[in-house]
Amino acid sequence: MLLRGLSAFPITPADAEGRVDLAALRRLVARLNAAKVDSIGLLGSTGTYAYLSRSERRRALDAALEEVAGQAPILVGVGALRTDEAVRLAQDAKAAGAAAGLLAPVSYTPLTEDEVFEHFATVARESGLPLCIYDNPGTTHFRFSPALIGRLSRLPEIIAVKSPAPEPHAVAAHLADLRSVVPDGFSLGYSGDWNSVEALIAGGDAWYSVVAGLFPRTAMAIVQAVQNGDAAEARRLNERLDPLWSLFKELSSLRVIYASADLLGICRAAPPRPILPLTGAARQRVANALTALDLT
Amino acid sequence: MLLRGLSAFPITPADAEGRVDLAALRRLVARLNAAKVDSIGLLGSTGTYAYLSRSERRRALDAALEEVAGQAPILVGVGALRTDEAVRLAQDAKAAGAAAGLLAPVSYTPLTEDEVFEHFATVARESGLPLCIYDNPGTTHFRFSPALIGRLSRLPEIIAVKSPAPEPHAVAAHLADLRSVVPDGFSLGYSGDWNSVEALIAGGDAWYSVVAGLFPRTAMAIVQAVQNGDAAEARRLNERLDPLWSLFKELSSLRVIYASADLLGICRAAPPRPILPLTGAARQRVANALTALDLT
Repeated sequence: MLLRGLSAFPITPADAEGRVDLAALRRLVARLNAAKVDSIGLLGSTGTYAYLSRSERRRALDAALEEVAGQAPILVGVGALRTDEAVRLAQDAKAAGAAAGLLAPVSYTPLTEDEVFEHFATVARESGLPLCIYDNPGTTHFRFSPALIGRLSRLPEIIAVKSPAPEPHAVAAHLADLRSVVPDGFSLGYSGDWNSVEALIAGGDAWYSVVAGLFPRTAMAIVQAVQNGDAAEARRLNERLDPLWSLFKELSSLRVIYASADLLGICRAAPPRPILPLTGAARQRVANALTALDLT
Repeated sequence: MLLRGLSAFPITPADAEGRVDLAALRRLVARLNAAKVDSIGLLGSTGTYAYLSRSERRRALDAALEEVAGQAPILVGVGALRTDEAVRLAQDAKAAGAAAGLLAPVSYTPLTEDEVFEHFATVARESGLPLCIYDNPGTTHFRFSPALIGRLSRLPEIIAVKSPAPEPHAVAAHLADLRSVVPDGFSLGYSGDWNSVEALIAGGDAWYSVVAGLFPRTAMAIVQAVQNGDAAEARRLNERLDPLWSLFKELSSLRVIYASADLLGICRAAPPRPILPLTGAARQRVANALTALDLT
């Protein structure tokens, strides 16, 4: 199974015109490599793929692949509003050497299930790239039914789904629902850092993690505790991060991670406008949380 | 007041690669001109602005301006995910000669009120183009509060808002809420064809209409009845269109209008993928409604 364990999602540092800072991106990727994460989720939502041009996305991918040097597979966001654009991005990813593509049903006009199926089937067929279904209703405003995931999982290129982690009490049922409709070996993973650890404990295959994109050792320690069968330790480490999870929920993980990278001097990048960098009291609260948690 | 009465929103016929069919677009604009609509809403959501490149949007605008030959002002969609792109689109619109821009807070990462304010203020300041706020939560997933509309209405370039028409019982209160926060002469208009006529009767300034983009005489008759003080006649004409409104609500006005244009041979264009053209029973129901209503 290609996508299991910890998949770390870094930001994509870029200037105000959307030109990627490759040196800063390489520093972020090097941190992930050093922590031996299981995969890197380049150009995810946190990686602001939706805001970057095709050529900048290719530049970022080429640099990350060179930096990672085969140590971890790279899963790369190939979503776009138009089907033909998503096809070209997936073809680029395949040609560059990405291990898989992460495909969200980016929408403006709300899409039907049949439209999303055809979109995914076209990208899969025209690119030949292994694909992870990116279910993220908070950004795409489309909700995948288990039936649609089951239908898509029959396409040979579609190998995984990244679902928003349900509340802990609901995750076992969510996993069981999906397992009943997908083939053996299909990867069921979760995002939404604050609930993902319970999803892993319940048997989820992968944690697609924003915090891991900047603090990979912190996230790896949790995943290793789960893999060692020590759920209590995983929960203890996860609960310790509650101050950060509170900020993620209130201000969005993207804004908090950008502020964190800036506060720690790891890279000087602001999110793409219209998204504004955190300032004032919000930024100070992030600084306080990083200090209290001893995150570096 | 620049934006009042009937604003007609045509589709933007384009090929599968997103290249605009200028001859077909001119035919649509000529229909609107012949019906003497009060303004043309080019490249709105129905005009698939979000799916078209900057250069194609400019080609479409130049052709429409030439065809309309000054008879009706053109309001043109200048929305984009990135603030710098929206600025460039608004600058293009100003340079081409559009009367105003229609600006939606297109989002991927959900936006805060402050982020939307800064986005609008930047586009207004950098372009100098008169702007209509495009409040369309169904596509942007952002909801404007009256307070934010009031704040934006203080910017000299921002002259109007296009709100989704509330249910008839709620429209008077909605209008009163907005009137209390905007300057005199600020245009309060509505979209969502099925509820817009009641909004006009209640004192709304403009109807931003999808049906008028293809059937301008039908919509003009309703607006003229309202302007003549004959609300009963306006309601009668509007209720007659109930079969069409039902299809709009169920299948989306965009899909129904594309199918209508195709069925009537006005232009042969499909919506941009991933949006699929209506087929089979859905298309037949549109055909039946057009026949029953004698729409041509």
